[in-house]
Amino acid sequence: MKLGRAGELPLIEGIRTRFAPASRSILTGIGDDCAVLRPGAGRMVVTTDLMAEGVHFDPAYTTPRQLGHKLISVNVSDVYAMGGSPAHVLLSLALPARSDTRFLDGLLDGVHEALSLYRASLVGGDISSSGDGAVLNATVIGYARRPVLRSGARPGDRIYVTGPLGDAAAGLELLKRIGKPVDLGRPRQRPLKWSIMEPLLHRHLMPVVRAPGAIAARATAMIDISDGLSLDLWRLAEESGVGARIYEERLPLSDAMRQAAARLCLDPLELALAGGEDYELLFTAPRRVRVRGVCIGEVVAGGLTLVHPDGTTEPLRPRGYLHFG
Amino acid sequence: MKLGRAGELPLIEGIRTRFAPASRSILTGIGDDCAVLRPGAGRMVVTTDLMAEGVHFDPAYTTPRQLGHKLISVNVSDVYAMGGSPAHVLLSLALPARSDTRFLDGLLDGVHEALSLYRASLVGGDISSSGDGAVLNATVIGYARRPVLRSGARPGDRIYVTGPLGDAAAGLELLKRIGKPVDLGRPRQRPLKWSIMEPLLHRHLMPVVRAPGAIAARATAMIDISDGLSLDLWRLAEESGVGARIYEERLPLSDAMRQAAARLCLDPLELALAGGEDYELLFTAPRRVRVRGVCIGEVVAGGLTLVHPDGTTEPLRPRGYLHFG
Repeated sequence: MKLGRAGELPLIEGIRTRFAPASRSILTGIGDDCAVLRPGAGRMVVTTDLMAEGVHFDPAYTTPRQLGHKLISVNVSDVYAMGGSPAHVLLSLALPARSDTRFLDGLLDGVHEALSLYRASLVGGDISSSGDGAVLNATVIGYARRPVLRSGARPGDRIYVTGPLGDAAAGLELLKRIGKPVDLGRPRQRPLKWSIMEPLLHRHLMPVVRAPGAIAARATAMIDISDGLSLDLWRLAEESGVGARIYEERLPLSDAMRQAAARLCLDPLELALAGGEDYELLFTAPRRVRVRGVCIGEVVAGGLTLVHPDGTTEPLRPRGYLHFG
Repeated sequence: MKLGRAGELPLIEGIRTRFAPASRSILTGIGDDCAVLRPGAGRMVVTTDLMAEGVHFDPAYTTPRQLGHKLISVNVSDVYAMGGSPAHVLLSLALPARSDTRFLDGLLDGVHEALSLYRASLVGGDISSSGDGAVLNATVIGYARRPVLRSGARPGDRIYVTGPLGDAAAGLELLKRIGKPVDLGRPRQRPLKWSIMEPLLHRHLMPVVRAPGAIAARATAMIDISDGLSLDLWRLAEESGVGARIYEERLPLSDAMRQAAARLCLDPLELALAGGEDYELLFTAPRRVRVRGVCIGEVVAGGLTLVHPDGTTEPLRPRGYLHFG
């Protein structure tokens, strides 16, 4: 059935039943003018991120379930990047009236799965028809005992990432070659072996973002890598008023990404530096503090520098995904 | 200049400078992965509402400043409807790359004005290009010492509204006749005298929503009238498990609305019952409690009934604006 025939009230009632409050912090969930919440412990951290059809996603390449999952993950990633834990989520959906109700159902399946994974609850939202194309927005409210800002890096700190870089960008390139939605549960062997493609496609289509754990207590500055290492490192350095020196040979590149890059004639270093949507955490910590993560360089007084394996250097230009030019 | 040439980073930097944190509750505002906030006193109340081009607004009929103002107002209205006070706002904007930067500037002018009016602060957001058409979303976080739900009405309670009904719907009809954006500071005399048109156009284009004041401490149930009295009364009654009896002659209809309806050959009662976007508060209170508001009827055990001036009755069908059919 088309959304245009389903009716707003039954749609909202279905969502309300499905996402019934499951946390004692929710005094009133979906169905009133506002959700009523008991604030958690520590500082409140709040973020909002939208995904627009034709810009952030193409329904010809992704399933509704993957979209819903990703929408939650990219927002939770921002909460994790503050050293926080997600608690409450609001969802705004503008969907073309011509969309099928299966699109909304699949989207909500993905939202539900991701919320379970991150132990967060949907508490409210808005659903509306859109003029043309879907726009999905989520707001996540979380709590952090010690929020970690982008601005705390100091010269001498080490720079870390929590996992491999460029995987999501390689996954996107693979997806473009495949040219249609991929069911991650059904192996396919083109253009590469499934064991190579699967982790990369998964990283792009349904990223599972990484909780900071003990890093939250030790990092001096933190950001999630959503737009590419070089751009997000530049952001962190700008906010901290420092520079950074990154060692090419220390960048964690997965075997799968290297093999995919070779097959697709892409530069793996470029995917790692400028590829978006890795959603790994990039953070700094004092030299003597032990943390989990791959040390890729150090904070310096000024300038962003990439050190090649042979010891030569070049300025590391911030590049990655930017809207508007 | 087109947004497509302005660049995301300068745009965000401009917004950050303009909306610098002005409240002690904001520990970190725009510019990190999340805003960091100190929760306020009482329960937290949270809402999100979006406005989509071609559905909620048409740029051919409204100015960007009016849009920005209205986006904040409609969200604040939900916080007021819980008996709360707005504190923090997040804004998500998906804008076509072909939009002019003046569109964004005007939109932010309106947001800024509204935030000043309601004493709330912008603390974060997301800005992105959109495939086609603008989609604007705001999330408002507020606090209420005693949240007023939709579900607390009891038979015997009186039903009140805070102001005239149908004005915004009449304003929209006038705007359709005018057929282009209206500068509310520049009087025009067609199709009616400006003194009649101005308040109605204002109500539709830049509603100023009403804080509940002492009502928050006395109401048993409350909702804002965003989709029409009959539909929002039905919602309140459903949540409370009650019915309502409304007296036609008690409905507050403004002179301006009556005159506009006469000129436009519209039924003023229909505008009052089914016209959307009045953003007055609809609430119930025990019989003997004194409150500010116009008493329009009483809560009964079941059924929605409209009582005509001659004493005859008819079932009050919920009708007003609904998405998807």
